[in-house]
Amino acid sequence: MPLWHVYHPPGTYTAQEKQQFADGITGIYTRFGLPKFYVVTLFHEIDATSFYIGGEPRQAAVRIVVAHIARHLDDATARRRTSETLARVVAPHTTERGLYCEFHVDETPRDLWMTDGIAPPPPGSEAEKLWVQENRPVPY
Amino acid sequence: MPLWHVYHPPGTYTAQEKQQFADGITGIYTRFGLPKFYVVTLFHEIDATSFYIGGEPRQAAVRIVVAHIARHLDDATARRRTSETLARVVAPHTTERGLYCEFHVDETPRDLWMTDGIAPPPPGSEAEKLWVQENRPVPY
Amino acid sequence: MPLWHVYHPPGTYTAQEKQQFADGITGIYTRFGLPKFYVVTLFHEIDATSFYIGGEPRQAAVRIVVAHIARHLDDATARRRTSETLARVVAPHTTERGLYCEFHVDETPRDLWMTDGIAPPPPGSEAEKLWVQENRPVPY
Repeated sequence: MPLWHVYHPPGTYTAQEKQQFADGITGIYTRFGLPKFYVVTLFHEIDATSFYIGGEPRQAAVRIVVAHIARHLDDATARRRTSETLARVVAPHTTERGLYCEFHVDETPRDLWMTDGIAPPPPGSEAEKLWVQENRPVPY
Repeated sequence: MPLWHVYHPPGTYTAQEKQQFADGITGIYTRFGLPKFYVVTLFHEIDATSFYIGGEPRQAAVRIVVAHIARHLDDATARRRTSETLARVVAPHTTERGLYCEFHVDETPRDLWMTDGIAPPPPGSEAEKLWVQENRPVPY
Repeated sequence: MPLWHVYHPPGTYTAQEKQQFADGITGIYTRFGLPKFYVVTLFHEIDATSFYIGGEPRQAAVRIVVAHIARHLDDATARRRTSETLARVVAPHTTERGLYCEFHVDETPRDLWMTDGIAPPPPGSEAEKLWVQENRPVPY
């Protein structure tokens, strides 16, 4: 759970900048008590002839696709706040560097999700706390 | 919103053909009054040893994945018509060139979506019309 | 339908190993009577500086994203069994090789899906049986 795909032009980020970006993303979720290792971030270079916005090639743009699995938000306020948090976290790596940035989040079913062959423990459970502490899937 | 991922064999499209394809895709949505820049198309080359259909490597095939965010369709007729429109737009770039083509569309939540840190305006609103006109996110 | 994306470090699989993996995946669905060609598997190499788990670069890991389109499962038992089946099929290619593995499945709408411009036939229909037999989309 959360899986982040960051589609960006070649050479946009150094390895260190990618790690900092991934670290910022991870912080969004650990603050809510999720295990750190739940957060996977994949960077994908898309070259100028393969990235189109409105039918035009576009070079200074980042498109982010997020899947939320472990937690879904029912409340409109929480959802708005989540979008705002994501925007705040991505801004230093995108808009504040002059890169147009669009993101969207999908919410996918929790019960069709596994880590190392184990169905992750229920939200807030003792087992989940152990997973946070150990930062890996532990049989429960 | 709409995000199109086009997974295709290496060398299938020239830069110009990709732009024409992306342009055709964009037209689907601008006809419905959406801002042009909402439509993002990413092309991904997948080489012959990484593209399998039914467990067999397959070279002359294109797999398309679409996310619809800004508008969801409730009505069965509108949904069928949408699929047919997509099929018609992709055909000249796929089946009519002898490439097997499969696509599917996912519908993801509108309220977990942002462009340049701004939640896009409601469908049909004055702000959305301004976004169409300016072809960029404008604070509202 | 099912579309499998396998994100893995460079050099993890030979072409033959990818085919065996794709073949194992295909078997999950053909056992349920689906046409073989419905199962598409795409492998994506993600290099060490682009793959982060919990904000740290991670090399020995595979992240799998699956879309189910043709069949959705209503029943909690069937859903748990499906996750377990997927885990069993991916294990020899991941965890049993010392690779951390996380997967999740999304379920997307059947009526926004087409193969070669044809809306696939209803589950269990005569047309679907013909598609199984011919292993290609046949007008019906």
